[in-house]
Amino acid sequence: MTLQNKQYRLAARPVGIPKDSDWEFVTSDAPAAGDGEVLVKVHFVSLDPAMRGWMNDAKSYIAPVGIGEVMRAGTVGEVVVSNNPAFSAGDFVTGMHGVQQYGVSNGKDLVKVDPKLAPLESYLGGLGMPGLTAFFGLTDVGAVKEGDTVLVSGAAGAVGSLVGQIAKIKGARAVGIAGGADKCRYVVEELGFDACVDYKSDTFLEEMKNSLKTGVDVYFDNVGGDILDMALARLNRHARVVICGAISQYNNTTPVQGPANYLNLLVQHSRMEGFVVFDYMKQYGQGIQELATWYGQGNLKFKEHVDTGIENFPSTLLKLFTGENFGKLVLKVVED
Amino acid sequence: MTLQNKQYRLAARPVGIPKDSDWEFVTSDAPAAGDGEVLVKVHFVSLDPAMRGWMNDAKSYIAPVGIGEVMRAGTVGEVVVSNNPAFSAGDFVTGMHGVQQYGVSNGKDLVKVDPKLAPLESYLGGLGMPGLTAFFGLTDVGAVKEGDTVLVSGAAGAVGSLVGQIAKIKGARAVGIAGGADKCRYVVEELGFDACVDYKSDTFLEEMKNSLKTGVDVYFDNVGGDILDMALARLNRHARVVICGAISQYNNTTPVQGPANYLNLLVQHSRMEGFVVFDYMKQYGQGIQELATWYGQGNLKFKEHVDTGIENFPSTLLKLFTGENFGKLVLKVVED
Repeated sequence: MTLQNKQYRLAARPVGIPKDSDWEFVTSDAPAAGDGEVLVKVHFVSLDPAMRGWMNDAKSYIAPVGIGEVMRAGTVGEVVVSNNPAFSAGDFVTGMHGVQQYGVSNGKDLVKVDPKLAPLESYLGGLGMPGLTAFFGLTDVGAVKEGDTVLVSGAAGAVGSLVGQIAKIKGARAVGIAGGADKCRYVVEELGFDACVDYKSDTFLEEMKNSLKTGVDVYFDNVGGDILDMALARLNRHARVVICGAISQYNNTTPVQGPANYLNLLVQHSRMEGFVVFDYMKQYGQGIQELATWYGQGNLKFKEHVDTGIENFPSTLLKLFTGENFGKLVLKVVED
Repeated sequence: MTLQNKQYRLAARPVGIPKDSDWEFVTSDAPAAGDGEVLVKVHFVSLDPAMRGWMNDAKSYIAPVGIGEVMRAGTVGEVVVSNNPAFSAGDFVTGMHGVQQYGVSNGKDLVKVDPKLAPLESYLGGLGMPGLTAFFGLTDVGAVKEGDTVLVSGAAGAVGSLVGQIAKIKGARAVGIAGGADKCRYVVEELGFDACVDYKSDTFLEEMKNSLKTGVDVYFDNVGGDILDMALARLNRHARVVICGAISQYNNTTPVQGPANYLNLLVQHSRMEGFVVFDYMKQYGQGIQELATWYGQGNLKFKEHVDTGIENFPSTLLKLFTGENFGKLVLKVVED
């Protein structure tokens, strides 16, 4: 019996929000593992804002996904066939198998994970790329130190939720920005942020002022747009603005909104720095170890938003842009 | 006989370009030097883009000039009366005496200069604040290193002209942006930049591309606006954008134009950092020493644009915003 492999391929380059017609849903025979290769049965696919950028035909830190190619995505799954001495059937591994149910790999990009230590899907979240992004972005690029006030947008999201928790571990004050009272309550009551401001609230501006009376030492930006400008207006001397993403701008069909308050960098002798977690590849091991230790001590909480069924990929992806997901968005593609 | 002192006071906060009615021209008795004070006869007043910011009633790195106060400005002049043992009549000093012909000081902010080493007005230019701004901005904030490509706007200006020359001294490639063929010729032929692109030329964009085929490692920005965006689009990996000023935006009556290409900081893992030379006050001595050494060796050239007559201050100041000045703009206020 041949394994059947369902997959989503990029059919067209989206203009604005990705449409159904930008995708092709294909079912075919699963690939076979060649010499030195392993076949991985994907359990969970990671859905990340960065995927929107990979769909554009633009120069970036990574090549775009080609038309007709399987959509690139982080994955976690189980080795079902191994022709590679480093892996055995039954191992669980993270990789970049994309939006499909089976993938092959020569093993170089695979990392073994332990499903007994944490739920499998958390290796796509708090113990995966989003966790590492928060860790290196805040500690290295943001150079967070005790007594700082750290402001983070997308505070209920995969990266933002970790940023605030790591800020607290480092002795800083953590203020989040999130959409809706439920998310804000979660950020403060469950994750332990000092405050969270609801950008959908009518009193947003006033709440921002009240929560940031001592200014901002580190702003970790996941959203861009007006919120970036508001944060720039509240910088302290020698502040650090970490540009991690700009989800408010990714589906723009008009030019990106530049931060009009950027001259506050001059007034406050501050810097704004972009980064991509791939820069820290050599230090992933150290980062994961720190995150896992904090998780084991109960100082770090993760939340995943799990949708089910590979056929739902196009609609699930859109939840990132409407803010509908609550926690790290993953799609369960393994069929029970 | 009592000395007469002509001075310009700020009469109103300008909206957009400063108008004649924003100034009050006053002639009164020169002040007297009290105990421990010196009376300085001002020879040259420095005209700098930052002055426009000091006229606004806005929180910044320095308090605004008050309505009715003498306009703040850097100066160089001669001590004519000294009640301070550290100074003698006949000493030449830089200070912040503002737009007037005589000022008093307790001496703490005065720095003695040698008119035999360099023309007096160069202590307001290449051997003064603009020189120090270029020096610390490029070497510290910009972290310039051998083999870098350094792009600088306002390349024929007081700061920009030094930035490119220091870049060359440090073994980098220097590309300038300036307005007009004359300025560009001066930047390349006199100052030794590798290239200069004329932003007033119809072929500006094409020339930018041709001059920056290896990308930009350091962009030193004095102008903001579209030119900042063009530079951001050409950054190399781990580039540094030094925000020194934004003269294109200072007289805006509409909101500042934010850099729409700021997300290239993320794509290229780059940073954009603002700074004010006052941050480096403790290292001024070291900076001046380096600049004076290079000047003495013939490796650094300065050019001053000298207008004459304190009564011409309002119209001379405007040359900064039209780009009419060619070299560091100073006003000779001493009457022969």
